[in-house]
Amino acid sequence: MEGYRGFLGLLVSALLVGFLSVIFVLVWVLHYREGLGWDGGALEFNWHPVLAVTGFVFIQGIAIIVYRLPWTWKCSKFLMKSIHAGLNAVAAVLAIISVVAVFDYHNVRSIPHMYSLHSWVGLTAVILYVQQLVLGFLIFLLPWAPLSLRAVVMPIHVYSGLLLFGTVIATVLMGVTEKLFFVLKNPSYHSFPPEGVFTNTLGLLILVFGALIFWIVTRPQWKRPREPGSILLQPNGGAEGMQGTMAISSSHSPDSAEAELSTEGAARKRTLGSLDDAGQRSTM
Amino acid sequence: MEGYRGFLGLLVSALLVGFLSVIFVLVWVLHYREGLGWDGGALEFNWHPVLAVTGFVFIQGIAIIVYRLPWTWKCSKFLMKSIHAGLNAVAAVLAIISVVAVFDYHNVRSIPHMYSLHSWVGLTAVILYVQQLVLGFLIFLLPWAPLSLRAVVMPIHVYSGLLLFGTVIATVLMGVTEKLFFVLKNPSYHSFPPEGVFTNTLGLLILVFGALIFWIVTRPQWKRPREPGSILLQPNGGAEGMQGTMAISSSHSPDSAEAELSTEGAARKRTLGSLDDAGQRSTM
Repeated sequence: MEGYRGFLGLLVSALLVGFLSVIFVLVWVLHYREGLGWDGGALEFNWHPVLAVTGFVFIQGIAIIVYRLPWTWKCSKFLMKSIHAGLNAVAAVLAIISVVAVFDYHNVRSIPHMYSLHSWVGLTAVILYVQQLVLGFLIFLLPWAPLSLRAVVMPIHVYSGLLLFGTVIATVLMGVTEKLFFVLKNPSYHSFPPEGVFTNTLGLLILVFGALIFWIVTRPQWKRPREPGSILLQPNGGAEGMQGTMAISSSHSPDSAEAELSTEGAARKRTLGSLDDAGQRSTM
Repeated sequence: MEGYRGFLGLLVSALLVGFLSVIFVLVWVLHYREGLGWDGGALEFNWHPVLAVTGFVFIQGIAIIVYRLPWTWKCSKFLMKSIHAGLNAVAAVLAIISVVAVFDYHNVRSIPHMYSLHSWVGLTAVILYVQQLVLGFLIFLLPWAPLSLRAVVMPIHVYSGLLLFGTVIATVLMGVTEKLFFVLKNPSYHSFPPEGVFTNTLGLLILVFGALIFWIVTRPQWKRPREPGSILLQPNGGAEGMQGTMAISSSHSPDSAEAELSTEGAARKRTLGSLDDAGQRSTM
């Protein structure tokens, strides 16, 4: 891998900052807030930030960069897709539980649901994330989707994934803001109480984690290499979105995209029945 | 241009949604809030959201996609760089004035500065945005930076630009959240008052605007084409970041990156003195 040490440094930084974010959100609810429980009260509400940060930010972030770990390049693409899908599924389940915790809390206290911008954006993100997961499973993990469909959907999948990740981070920052203005009354948020400074720092950590993941996943030189003999999925002359290096990692030119798609059809037939076929490899 | 109608549809949508965001923020402060003025009070504070949305979101968004307008592809790269830098400079000035408005307001009312997560992230974004502007001006607009430096900085410039744009949108969403929890007391935010619903919608519009800009700027097929005879800046085998198609728009392979850089040196010498030289064209 080109620039391996740089990659390693950034990966370790991302893991460290992500791990620190999880520690910070736990310290926040366990030390500064009421702790954790499933009582319909504040203890239950506190699962909301913990699961959002752990699942929807940290685990989603790892799921995004899992193809880029050079140690996994020997593993089959099918295995890596399963890990990518599995991590995203865990993130989705944790995100859903985190939403349930808030709805429960609101029900018990008779607080109306879904009035804040945080809730509008957050619930939309959860729904679209589950949709992304289901579509990704049907189109990229199951072996039946035609390669032409995969070629069309892949740039949208990559774009939506990164957009959702960014939106989730924005939602978490709104949630932190909302919560601190709610609870920091005496002493007030504006008098710089330890909880305010600590939780602001949590927000910064989450933002830095997002920035590191975004850098790692958009470096073309750190992309999982295509296997020799695998085929390029490039409809419309390079619609791989963020993953433009898929196109520069070989001598293929975008002008030959249509020809490549026909070749893929032939290759697909040759390898039909194998989940780790050339077509699948080239799509993710 | 490939997929011209799709591009046009998305561009018009982005302009419409961006324009609507500006209208919404104006209606918010003029109809629901106290209006605009420079009095050290609420009227002055209200410039903060107006200038942030107009300058830091809308104008920055346009600055990001300005190279992708196919009608400008006949214009010199130097002209387009100047427009890109000019729009970003206008956005920076408006962002700075928006911050001054809040500091003034806090001073007059003796509210402490910089206690919220919104303020931490927002001020950091303004400072880094100005730094990005200055570095971009020195390295890409002025003719003196060596091409090798430009090649190294370009992927960082593109990455930082998009990261800052996303961070600014997250900051605006935090700001909207903060303000609505502050001011909507009677009727409360959770009773769905018209101002709450209206301003939540403003938040959604800003998010959709960001999503459209992000899609437009990451489609390789909509990238400004390199002129015939221009040279590829690709250190480390394709480090153009989000702009991977720079590499697939010709038959250059990343393996020849070093050779290309030497060729650039020669080309630079040939065209020295012209601001719109081949090297400059290839860097942005």
